[in-house]
Amino acid sequence: MTMKTVGILGGGQLARMMVLAGAPLGLRFELFDPAADACGAQLAPLQVAAFEDEAALAAFAARVDVVTFDFENVPAHSARFLAARVPVHPHPDALAVAQDRLSEKTLFQQLGIPLPPFADIRSRDELAARVAEFGMPCIVKTRRLGYDGKGQFRIRSAADIDAAWATLGDYVEKTGLILEGFVAFDREVSVVAVRGRDGEFRAWPVTGNWHVDGVLSASLAPAQLSPALHERAIGHARALAERLDYVGVFALELFCRGDELLVNEMAPRVHNSGHWTIEGSETSQFENHLRAVLGLPLGDTRMLGHACMLNWLGAMPEAAAVLGQPGGHWHDYGKQPRAGRKVGHATLRDADAQALADALDAVGAQLDRTAQVAPLIAALRS
Amino acid sequence: MTMKTVGILGGGQLARMMVLAGAPLGLRFELFDPAADACGAQLAPLQVAAFEDEAALAAFAARVDVVTFDFENVPAHSARFLAARVPVHPHPDALAVAQDRLSEKTLFQQLGIPLPPFADIRSRDELAARVAEFGMPCIVKTRRLGYDGKGQFRIRSAADIDAAWATLGDYVEKTGLILEGFVAFDREVSVVAVRGRDGEFRAWPVTGNWHVDGVLSASLAPAQLSPALHERAIGHARALAERLDYVGVFALELFCRGDELLVNEMAPRVHNSGHWTIEGSETSQFENHLRAVLGLPLGDTRMLGHACMLNWLGAMPEAAAVLGQPGGHWHDYGKQPRAGRKVGHATLRDADAQALADALDAVGAQLDRTAQVAPLIAALRS
Repeated sequence: MTMKTVGILGGGQLARMMVLAGAPLGLRFELFDPAADACGAQLAPLQVAAFEDEAALAAFAARVDVVTFDFENVPAHSARFLAARVPVHPHPDALAVAQDRLSEKTLFQQLGIPLPPFADIRSRDELAARVAEFGMPCIVKTRRLGYDGKGQFRIRSAADIDAAWATLGDYVEKTGLILEGFVAFDREVSVVAVRGRDGEFRAWPVTGNWHVDGVLSASLAPAQLSPALHERAIGHARALAERLDYVGVFALELFCRGDELLVNEMAPRVHNSGHWTIEGSETSQFENHLRAVLGLPLGDTRMLGHACMLNWLGAMPEAAAVLGQPGGHWHDYGKQPRAGRKVGHATLRDADAQALADALDAVGAQLDRTAQVAPLIAALRS
Repeated sequence: MTMKTVGILGGGQLARMMVLAGAPLGLRFELFDPAADACGAQLAPLQVAAFEDEAALAAFAARVDVVTFDFENVPAHSARFLAARVPVHPHPDALAVAQDRLSEKTLFQQLGIPLPPFADIRSRDELAARVAEFGMPCIVKTRRLGYDGKGQFRIRSAADIDAAWATLGDYVEKTGLILEGFVAFDREVSVVAVRGRDGEFRAWPVTGNWHVDGVLSASLAPAQLSPALHERAIGHARALAERLDYVGVFALELFCRGDELLVNEMAPRVHNSGHWTIEGSETSQFENHLRAVLGLPLGDTRMLGHACMLNWLGAMPEAAAVLGQPGGHWHDYGKQPRAGRKVGHATLRDADAQALADALDAVGAQLDRTAQVAPLIAALRS
């Protein structure tokens, strides 16, 4: 398998971390991204072209042995165009399901995985009727193309219905709209899992996640979850992967409410809530994704102690505060600063939960980010 | 410190692994190597030029913020030429000492670090006289430029003196020659350590090493060594680093004979016997070398369980045998196969020594390399 070339659609930080994980496996990479400044291009050749550019896609397919994704919103048609020329993992059909909140939620329902109420929305009147049915607050989302809180409108009162329609009504034709009932959850968790070409399934321990303004702020693994819920969450991920005949890493986001687990959504790719696996697990999500895509044996997903991840948005803080901690690791994606942009993350790891809490305390104080670390410290000390 | 560019003299696998470790720190790299096919070039821009080419060196210096090495035999003059233009770590003076077996061994003597007998050799008669003094076997080596068993001649009987002189006599003028007395050692160990720009010193646990035909075959960490010897070995490394005002990672190779530790040589760079630190330690030698060179806080050198490394020479074996083991990790340097060439390595890691021995057993059997794994298994089961 030496010198195989992996093509990645999307050349951002996920592609970049795949390249870093794949180089030791003897892999070469080619990236494809509409943005000339995609940060993965610092480590691998980048083809700059629109995802719809079939001539560019055909040339790309000719240069690679297998194709995968760092970005799930590649047009399904483009993924299928490639799949006609070269193996593509995960399969474009799996990608298509995950791209569409309505098909995704319908599939969860078919699999018997509990989830909050949802409805396809075609008109303002239908929106108003469903809001009345689900109760408020609730959230209108585009069926496709939204992520990190984009393409969403939260309805808190009946007066918001018009504003929501004014903002998102046009999307009925473009992407479709979906209304989701609100869940008053205790916490959010995710399962990051991998399935091989031979059907082997492995999951990392469930991760606890904290979002701010719809964007992941911090993760902690393992999540503080009962063994029964932990097993149930992983069972949902396995059922989903098997139904989709999924190959590669994916994430399943869930809400916890008492003893209930309600699924939120899946991401058909390596996931921000699995970044801690680089240092916190025997095998990282990036390496296992590549092992799966190439048909190599999957790596062990056991944890090495406790691990947490802090996302850096906008601009990178000073590295020394994290690097000065015994289990502190730094990930700068090599991006230019921009408000709200994911530019990097830190991972802190320790065999001992209290020592990890102490390290987070120090990092929060030194970087003036006590609010970001507070929920992690509370969970570790609980 | 974002977007600093590190220049590396030498673009082989050590440079390649530095690039992989440094990218998450937000570093960019420029490599400089006479070989156009240097394997680091798969991940960073490569300037192809002779190490003596001052115009190329000046252009290189202008593009980087700091210079370091993946290869210790860069001419000291070239390193000094660069140091006049840009910070160079480790300092060219430290490099010069380590390049010359005679200055190196003289320094060990001055520091009171025990070592086998050695002598500067200027003529065939002097060689014969010293062989008589040291006893046989003993080894003639070039003072400079030899590595991995190259530029050496073992003298087993008086009849070998002429053959040794015929082979290496010309080197008296070119590089100088040194005769080293033979040590009937129980085992070979190395200290891999790092010293920061501020003088902070850290060492990884001492590593046990097995060589075949003068080339490292396998390593095991921690080495089976008494705590007293362990501490003494690290003390020697610290004394050396302080005397040289060393900045970065280096290795000190030692022979163990009963309760004695005799130093063999130092390598002023990241070292093959420290490759296990990538997965087996909280911070790898590659990351800590860069942290030191950039003046960042040094990372923790604690081990995560037991780790061992198997070198792959000539051609890569099948990856699946190693990747199928729970703590199995693969490192393909992306090189073309060539007899005797270091083309990659595997690391196996486990919290439990017996489990690690079992994994090695399986790998040795599957890859038909039982001889390579046997000493590691014996050490782990002892």
